[in-house]
Amino acid sequence: MIDTGELQHLLEQAKGNLGLPDVLPGLYDPIRYSLDAGGKRIRPLLCLASCEACGVDPEEAVSQAWGIEMFHNFTLLHDDVMDRAETRRNRPTVHVKWNEATAILSGDTMLTLATQLIARCPDDHLRQLLDLFNSTAIKIYEGQQMDMDFEARADVSVDEYLEMIRLKTAVLLSAACEAGAIMGHASDQTRNALSRWAENIGMAFQLRDDYLDSFGTVETFGKVPGGDILNDKKTWLLITAINEAPDAIMPLLGGERSQAKIEAVKAVYSSLNLPARIHELMDRYTTLAAEALVEANISPTDRDWFTGISASLAQRQS
Amino acid sequence: MIDTGELQHLLEQAKGNLGLPDVLPGLYDPIRYSLDAGGKRIRPLLCLASCEACGVDPEEAVSQAWGIEMFHNFTLLHDDVMDRAETRRNRPTVHVKWNEATAILSGDTMLTLATQLIARCPDDHLRQLLDLFNSTAIKIYEGQQMDMDFEARADVSVDEYLEMIRLKTAVLLSAACEAGAIMGHASDQTRNALSRWAENIGMAFQLRDDYLDSFGTVETFGKVPGGDILNDKKTWLLITAINEAPDAIMPLLGGERSQAKIEAVKAVYSSLNLPARIHELMDRYTTLAAEALVEANISPTDRDWFTGISASLAQRQS
Repeated sequence: MIDTGELQHLLEQAKGNLGLPDVLPGLYDPIRYSLDAGGKRIRPLLCLASCEACGVDPEEAVSQAWGIEMFHNFTLLHDDVMDRAETRRNRPTVHVKWNEATAILSGDTMLTLATQLIARCPDDHLRQLLDLFNSTAIKIYEGQQMDMDFEARADVSVDEYLEMIRLKTAVLLSAACEAGAIMGHASDQTRNALSRWAENIGMAFQLRDDYLDSFGTVETFGKVPGGDILNDKKTWLLITAINEAPDAIMPLLGGERSQAKIEAVKAVYSSLNLPARIHELMDRYTTLAAEALVEANISPTDRDWFTGISASLAQRQS
Repeated sequence: MIDTGELQHLLEQAKGNLGLPDVLPGLYDPIRYSLDAGGKRIRPLLCLASCEACGVDPEEAVSQAWGIEMFHNFTLLHDDVMDRAETRRNRPTVHVKWNEATAILSGDTMLTLATQLIARCPDDHLRQLLDLFNSTAIKIYEGQQMDMDFEARADVSVDEYLEMIRLKTAVLLSAACEAGAIMGHASDQTRNALSRWAENIGMAFQLRDDYLDSFGTVETFGKVPGGDILNDKKTWLLITAINEAPDAIMPLLGGERSQAKIEAVKAVYSSLNLPARIHELMDRYTTLAAEALVEANISPTDRDWFTGISASLAQRQS
């Protein structure tokens, strides 16, 4: 039976075995700092849980779990340089605490370390894991590029947005489950089912993030909401409003970063019923996830663990 | 018999098959731009030649050759951001022509594309190639970090400097030959011999670059010399001068970037006989390379090709 606490314990135990040497602190300290920030470790947990659900000791997948987490933290580190973000999880970002050159080089090192962790596997899994990891990485870069391209465009469609978040966010959750399933010697059917479950959960996860950034509270969102609105960030909410009520929303973009702007933009969103509609969309992805999960040949109790993850995302947070 | 022109032709022919899609020009155009800059393509040539010297059609190693070249160009792209370099090979750098976020993300993409190219091989070579590639990449990041650390230190030893250039420059030439030898089904002895040949040639290559940056001409160096001196760059020349004649060299560091500074620093170098001594050091590495080459089980005519590469580096250019 999958026990989240046990998997978290397994992850923390394995953290000392990631191949970070005690030399060159200028290179490796920012990597430790980045990994020490914590976070929910949702991706490595999904990797370990998928392996266990396939009937294999989750310890077999712990290197792949950390490979996925290392990769995720590498993308955060480089994204923070690209976005010139000053804080992450209430601490200064690496390029602020050290400098930009350090952030770039430590991030590059994390990408190669991630590849090495993924490759810590029996030879008969190497090709499949490596192809999965590399193709997932390419999709994530493409998603990031689409996200940056969107900021300069006024004609982004909702479908384009959904494809962007699929690439930028959902495919890594999917790869986490798929890597765990590969290490768990899963059948193609179970591997694909867990992969599709995670991709749909990832879509719901990102849409919830979009929703909470505008309509959440510090408690539900985990940080001060309103950032997306102040930055005119092209989220599902803004893109839908631009498409359906351009005359109402366009005059509110640009200009002063104020609480009044936040309230005015939220009023447009509410007038279009977007809070309810984004939850309907999230529910649709959660349903697709549930349908995929049925096709995985895993035990009912293990299935309940995955359903519990979905449920915690699906419930309204405010 | 190894024919440089034929290998160059093979490389250019394979350039269309690198996996760069026609979508997302913001991501992929900077990669094409970076690869189109040309350069001598010394690393992929060494990879193909090593494969051919082992008796295997060099076409078998063309993906690995491009993987190494893609990786090399990725390091140049990110190094240029870190150094805030404005031109490379007489063209604007990627972060100048596009922007910094593009340079970071396109570089990340090149690293993953390089890994994918390296992995285009029969399954029985995958583990060995991937381990070689990843461990080489880590060494190069460590060399770059040492190089950055050196700039803030006044007590760098010559041995530390030589270790830095081994990591930052020589090991990639070595990996190019080793990857070609692996694709050529070389014996351990031949693979190690070609690898050591290339590492020593790489050392001579970097020392010649150090020499020419101070004592070369536009013709021999390929660009305006003097940049290292103007930037107080910690090369073998400057480190040796700081260690042996601190009173003469230290007052010349910092301050105005002028032709007078270049001449004054060169005068100190000449007073210590550094031009002759750096050539002696280069000759020592070239001799070590020749000794390694003898141990490779390759034909005399193929050995001549490698010796020709060494000779072109060993000859004094000014």
